[in-house]
Amino acid sequence: MASAANHFSAGDFPESLADQYCRIRSVTLSLCTHLAPEDYVVQSMPDVSPTKWHLAHTTWFFERFVLVPYGGNYQRYDDHYHYLFNSYYYTAGQMHARPQRGLLTRPLVREILDYRRHVDAAIDELLRETGQPAEVREIIELGLNHEQQHQELLLTDIKHVFSRNPMQLIVNPDLVMPVSSRPSGHRFLAGASGALEFGATGDQFCFDNETPRHAQLLQEHSVGSRLITNEEYREFIRDGGYEECTLWLSDGWAAVKERGWNRPLYWSEDNESEFTLGGVRALDAAAPVCHVSLFEADAFARWAGARLPTEFEWESSANEALTEGNLLEAMHWHPVPGDNAQFFGDVWEWTSSSYAAYPGFRSLDGSLGEYNGKFMCNQMTVRGGSCVTAKDHVRASYRSFFYPDARWQFLGIRLAKDGVP
Amino acid sequence: MASAANHFSAGDFPESLADQYCRIRSVTLSLCTHLAPEDYVVQSMPDVSPTKWHLAHTTWFFERFVLVPYGGNYQRYDDHYHYLFNSYYYTAGQMHARPQRGLLTRPLVREILDYRRHVDAAIDELLRETGQPAEVREIIELGLNHEQQHQELLLTDIKHVFSRNPMQLIVNPDLVMPVSSRPSGHRFLAGASGALEFGATGDQFCFDNETPRHAQLLQEHSVGSRLITNEEYREFIRDGGYEECTLWLSDGWAAVKERGWNRPLYWSEDNESEFTLGGVRALDAAAPVCHVSLFEADAFARWAGARLPTEFEWESSANEALTEGNLLEAMHWHPVPGDNAQFFGDVWEWTSSSYAAYPGFRSLDGSLGEYNGKFMCNQMTVRGGSCVTAKDHVRASYRSFFYPDARWQFLGIRLAKDGVP
Amino acid sequence: MASAANHFSAGDFPESLADQYCRIRSVTLSLCTHLAPEDYVVQSMPDVSPTKWHLAHTTWFFERFVLVPYGGNYQRYDDHYHYLFNSYYYTAGQMHARPQRGLLTRPLVREILDYRRHVDAAIDELLRETGQPAEVREIIELGLNHEQQHQELLLTDIKHVFSRNPMQLIVNPDLVMPVSSRPSGHRFLAGASGALEFGATGDQFCFDNETPRHAQLLQEHSVGSRLITNEEYREFIRDGGYEECTLWLSDGWAAVKERGWNRPLYWSEDNESEFTLGGVRALDAAAPVCHVSLFEADAFARWAGARLPTEFEWESSANEALTEGNLLEAMHWHPVPGDNAQFFGDVWEWTSSSYAAYPGFRSLDGSLGEYNGKFMCNQMTVRGGSCVTAKDHVRASYRSFFYPDARWQFLGIRLAKDGVP
Amino acid sequence: MASAANHFSAGDFPESLADQYCRIRSVTLSLCTHLAPEDYVVQSMPDVSPTKWHLAHTTWFFERFVLVPYGGNYQRYDDHYHYLFNSYYYTAGQMHARPQRGLLTRPLVREILDYRRHVDAAIDELLRETGQPAEVREIIELGLNHEQQHQELLLTDIKHVFSRNPMQLIVNPDLVMPVSSRPSGHRFLAGASGALEFGATGDQFCFDNETPRHAQLLQEHSVGSRLITNEEYREFIRDGGYEECTLWLSDGWAAVKERGWNRPLYWSEDNESEFTLGGVRALDAAAPVCHVSLFEADAFARWAGARLPTEFEWESSANEALTEGNLLEAMHWHPVPGDNAQFFGDVWEWTSSSYAAYPGFRSLDGSLGEYNGKFMCNQMTVRGGSCVTAKDHVRASYRSFFYPDARWQFLGIRLAKDGVP
Repeated sequence: MASAANHFSAGDFPESLADQYCRIRSVTLSLCTHLAPEDYVVQSMPDVSPTKWHLAHTTWFFERFVLVPYGGNYQRYDDHYHYLFNSYYYTAGQMHARPQRGLLTRPLVREILDYRRHVDAAIDELLRETGQPAEVREIIELGLNHEQQHQELLLTDIKHVFSRNPMQLIVNPDLVMPVSSRPSGHRFLAGASGALEFGATGDQFCFDNETPRHAQLLQEHSVGSRLITNEEYREFIRDGGYEECTLWLSDGWAAVKERGWNRPLYWSEDNESEFTLGGVRALDAAAPVCHVSLFEADAFARWAGARLPTEFEWESSANEALTEGNLLEAMHWHPVPGDNAQFFGDVWEWTSSSYAAYPGFRSLDGSLGEYNGKFMCNQMTVRGGSCVTAKDHVRASYRSFFYPDARWQFLGIRLAKDGVP
Repeated sequence: MASAANHFSAGDFPESLADQYCRIRSVTLSLCTHLAPEDYVVQSMPDVSPTKWHLAHTTWFFERFVLVPYGGNYQRYDDHYHYLFNSYYYTAGQMHARPQRGLLTRPLVREILDYRRHVDAAIDELLRETGQPAEVREIIELGLNHEQQHQELLLTDIKHVFSRNPMQLIVNPDLVMPVSSRPSGHRFLAGASGALEFGATGDQFCFDNETPRHAQLLQEHSVGSRLITNEEYREFIRDGGYEECTLWLSDGWAAVKERGWNRPLYWSEDNESEFTLGGVRALDAAAPVCHVSLFEADAFARWAGARLPTEFEWESSANEALTEGNLLEAMHWHPVPGDNAQFFGDVWEWTSSSYAAYPGFRSLDGSLGEYNGKFMCNQMTVRGGSCVTAKDHVRASYRSFFYPDARWQFLGIRLAKDGVP
Repeated sequence: MASAANHFSAGDFPESLADQYCRIRSVTLSLCTHLAPEDYVVQSMPDVSPTKWHLAHTTWFFERFVLVPYGGNYQRYDDHYHYLFNSYYYTAGQMHARPQRGLLTRPLVREILDYRRHVDAAIDELLRETGQPAEVREIIELGLNHEQQHQELLLTDIKHVFSRNPMQLIVNPDLVMPVSSRPSGHRFLAGASGALEFGATGDQFCFDNETPRHAQLLQEHSVGSRLITNEEYREFIRDGGYEECTLWLSDGWAAVKERGWNRPLYWSEDNESEFTLGGVRALDAAAPVCHVSLFEADAFARWAGARLPTEFEWESSANEALTEGNLLEAMHWHPVPGDNAQFFGDVWEWTSSSYAAYPGFRSLDGSLGEYNGKFMCNQMTVRGGSCVTAKDHVRASYRSFFYPDARWQFLGIRLAKDGVP
Repeated sequence: MASAANHFSAGDFPESLADQYCRIRSVTLSLCTHLAPEDYVVQSMPDVSPTKWHLAHTTWFFERFVLVPYGGNYQRYDDHYHYLFNSYYYTAGQMHARPQRGLLTRPLVREILDYRRHVDAAIDELLRETGQPAEVREIIELGLNHEQQHQELLLTDIKHVFSRNPMQLIVNPDLVMPVSSRPSGHRFLAGASGALEFGATGDQFCFDNETPRHAQLLQEHSVGSRLITNEEYREFIRDGGYEECTLWLSDGWAAVKERGWNRPLYWSEDNESEFTLGGVRALDAAAPVCHVSLFEADAFARWAGARLPTEFEWESSANEALTEGNLLEAMHWHPVPGDNAQFFGDVWEWTSSSYAAYPGFRSLDGSLGEYNGKFMCNQMTVRGGSCVTAKDHVRASYRSFFYPDARWQFLGIRLAKDGVP
């Protein structure tokens, strides 16, 4: 974790860490506005966690990594919670098996909200004390970034849960979609090449996996001017993309066959509508395609005579762009049509880079060392954030990662090519 | 379904069908007194249904089989419910897959309670009308017996759900267990032999699978004077019962090995306590053992130098007994120590009889023909009802049935032997 | 095992046990005439054993149960064989896991033939000695009946192995099929009713599961005059039998859906030809249908407005018939068209009886007690032998048994009905 | 496929392509010297192919990619073979499912040898003709390298098959192991850094995945002077390496738990002996450890305070080394103790690089484009060849690849570190 610079809220003045804590924690609760207690319980597949688990786990994070070691005579709120809401920190103790998170009817939602309030009060108190070691603020900052990651997961997970119900439910009736507009034409733009620097620059928060900053050689290449749209993806389908094995990676073709994939997750059978957090809606031809796996993104790229960008090609281009776009605060919670030219928001963009350590990478010390490093195998790097990522959570060096068959996140496609136009 | 005689309530006067409907439906709700909305949602294994599903399905049964065909201009309450709450009546339309019942956060509990009230009102109105064909009352009576079956399932299912939570929960804090007492000594009592009549006698409600009444030849045999106790079962364990393959049916031994069985479901690892609907309690040595599979019951019997009774041996003995025992209304919801000499209540008793049609058996007409007949393969007959069976729901001819590896019901052991003492 | 009477060969004179041993053991080898070493190795599914395993296991049976306990200073031929070729006799020692039988390239076929010769010589020597206890001859007789069971399994198993090869192979080119002929019309014939005796009569060899002889009450019923033909089964298919859930047992319908059943095993997709031990042949409309599961037999019967016979109804009718038919020695190794009126040969006939102990049943002592009894759960009784059963191996009281989803044996359909015509 | 230069045999003179063909094809058969027909049939897990499948598939490769397109009026030898022996070339037609390769008893071994002779004769004839297009020779050269890959697979696969037999078999009794000797001390040697060139240089045969030659930036690093030994790995085990989750990648820890890994594949339970192609032998403490997964290699490295090299770090060091070592021709077919300082032979060395396309990579045209590219996901690059790799088949730029949980190949460990000593 690099040193933490100040974060700025929408206002003009620097936001204190206590204010930031308060703001980000309350954003999480605001995502649940329209949920009933029954909605918080279900785990629709092993990758998905119940809403109340997210609320509790993010709280556990602050309790376990801040209050227990630094909270003076703070006592653990509940020993069961310590066990139930650990996600994957083996060094922090035994934990409840992930696929069984949906078996828990208790603690009830209101009990978890009590737990949140209890921990929030203790953190607030801790932040008011003076003389805390520097790492307390660093870990709290990490915890807030962790909270934002779970804000996104909470929404992608509850979307999956609601999608499995044939009643055509709406997670959030307050969302509005902008009027559709034609996307700009797709062009390939020359990227930078040669020995370039990548990774966190140290002037803001970053995760350990963005470090150390180091050089990579980029060949001459071009990057797509915008994301691939639903209409372009539909053309791939119409052209038999899902039936043509030569377009697919070997493991991708196996996935297509075994799981019967023939369209993005959440599309209706006729490829004319899709399930969104705002309910079932007509598919907007001009919006970026989302909920595709790496395998589908790669096959689409091959069909299009292109390829996916490496994560460094992506970062090099994104460094030139504004950190703006259709993000959580825009309250669309779905990719929107339009220019699509930005590098941030709408959908996470698959890269061809497998998720690996940067040269000289060192994990955080202690249990927090389990945060990122141990996942550096079998997963692919995605970049740029999505329509449910908080605005102050994205940056050009940010690396997220998913297994190549993952589809339940907002995952989309940007193309690249060898050579310059 | 045999002709329906009047049912009597605890009072002295005959109970009208409308009153009976009202009473039995309200019993179902009373079982949920201590549940929060979150508790109604979870399906902890495919055999288990969520509590709210039970509440909705039993309501669907009356709507589908009474109100739709006989309810005049009654309109289906909700087309989704028609699909979601059909259990296994293929002829009644498409249905939601059983293992996915736990994926549904909606309809909410209060919406299902609205659905119950709506249907109850319509049934009440129907029962006040005159000139209904006789089968309306017969199907309502069937529906009430169906409701009672689901009262039992609701409790066995929520017990399983709560058992999977490490927080040591209590489903119902109002249950009381009687003081333990020594069981009477176990003896083998001579059973009747020769050509005897079995099945429903026609003087009260019965399911189709209890008909037609017919003769079977019984050989000379003896039946255990009482149920096997926890202490007796513990002795079987101590003696290495779960390690000695010669005691086991071939499929039973495979189950022991694959699933790692070494004690009844819900017992603690030290065989000293067990999870009950009243929470974790010390195991009562004198109480009947329960939550054992047919395989375990059969192995225990072989270890004891005995065997399980056939369902006809059981029925022949039960015909001599009073229809009394530790049933739902006793509010123990767990087997109790004591005499254990009765044939009804405490635990369903495994028999050695596979569940099959009686000679000349005919299913009910129409969709209700799917009620029982199609399950007559691979399952074993159990008899006598359990501590969560309604008192007016048991009788000597009653046949329930489970797969031989089932353990989540209140299932126990009575022995039998060839010859008379 | 009842006392052993003499068996007669085709000739006029009593056959000595030594001659019988020699004859039956050589029949086993004769079944392999056209196999190459590669053919002996493969296990195409867990139910199937490799040919060489059958040759070795039947030999192990004589070594383990005759030579080791009664063979004086006989030494085990090979300790590995003791482990590898035990099938399911836990009390006889550890064994190789059944699904791994096809992993063994060694011992080679010729090494197993050496093993057979070695054991055969030792048995021959033992039989020439005088003063052996009576049970030696009884166990050898049991071993020969066991050998005959494996003759049948060897053929059904190698048929399955060859069927999985797309090269359209022929197991035995010497088989000839008779010219087709129209079957007699199907009629229902009145069966005997009242209290009747069933089980082995004691005048010839029997397995323990045929004892003790005992009475059962039969209701008035009728039994089909012949087996159901391919053409009749094809009519069931044409009529949508595999799509109509109301015809099926619940577990049967699940099997249809999960496994995609829509015709008997080994039929071609167009229902016009089938794979046989003599290669792919046009389906003979007049021949008995075979390779159907209990579920399919039961659904066919329901479609036909009939039911399957109980095993006692079957035995009662078969007692009136000659023990003749299309059996192993006829060298068709496939059901043949024609009168089909006999009760023996062609196909094993599914009954509606689950495989269970007769009243008063006692297993053999020692390891041989594992022969039959432990399988008395979840399986259904079949009767009458098939086209690959040795002629002197069938009798009216003979009970074989399979899981209701089994199809790789020669399994067919005879109907029954309540009441008399 | 880069342009093909001449290959040199052990002798002084250039070897003609026809001679090379003859030599390499006969090496394949020589590997089977001690196998009986039964040994050629078995597939012990989906990754493993039967020996006879390897013999047939390598032949099919020449038939399909050389004789069919370029062989004039050459006719396919057998249409079934075309289907059965295609491995994964979808564009070359339908194929037999990989996990079912072990179901085929036919074609017999001698029939496959006939097929080999037939194709060999046709290739020989083709090579004698003049005027063939250049790509014929290139594809034959590719086919010979493909043949060598299958020589290695044939041995690793038959090793796995024999290992599953409890009879402690010996695949090849002619193998001899050298006398053990102490390994040199393990040191870290400084690697080259800066922008360096990697990939095939074009002066000998290479696969498409080694191209194009391109630059990568290497940071300062050190590479282990030799492979990790059995004794060093045993120390990792003794120190609790398999029980300490913090040493493992997340997916690796899941594999350890689910599969019960606690030592390398083929080691005995006491970690004192191992199964080899020469039978079970005492574990040589000084020999390189082998049959470990990437997960185990990575955990060992973390335990040792080091890491695995990237494939470029490896290639940079290997470029300085002689292409010599314990390879197939040494006839050990097992890693040998000793200096272990070489970069080639003994074991394939896991790298931390996921298998991916080099910048500017282009697949071969047509079906041969499926050779390498489609596997570039989820697998890890291994380098250096093993004790069963042909000597003229290895080179510094050679990239092979396996899933990170693979263990049945000869896979071992070399360490690396950031910085220079």
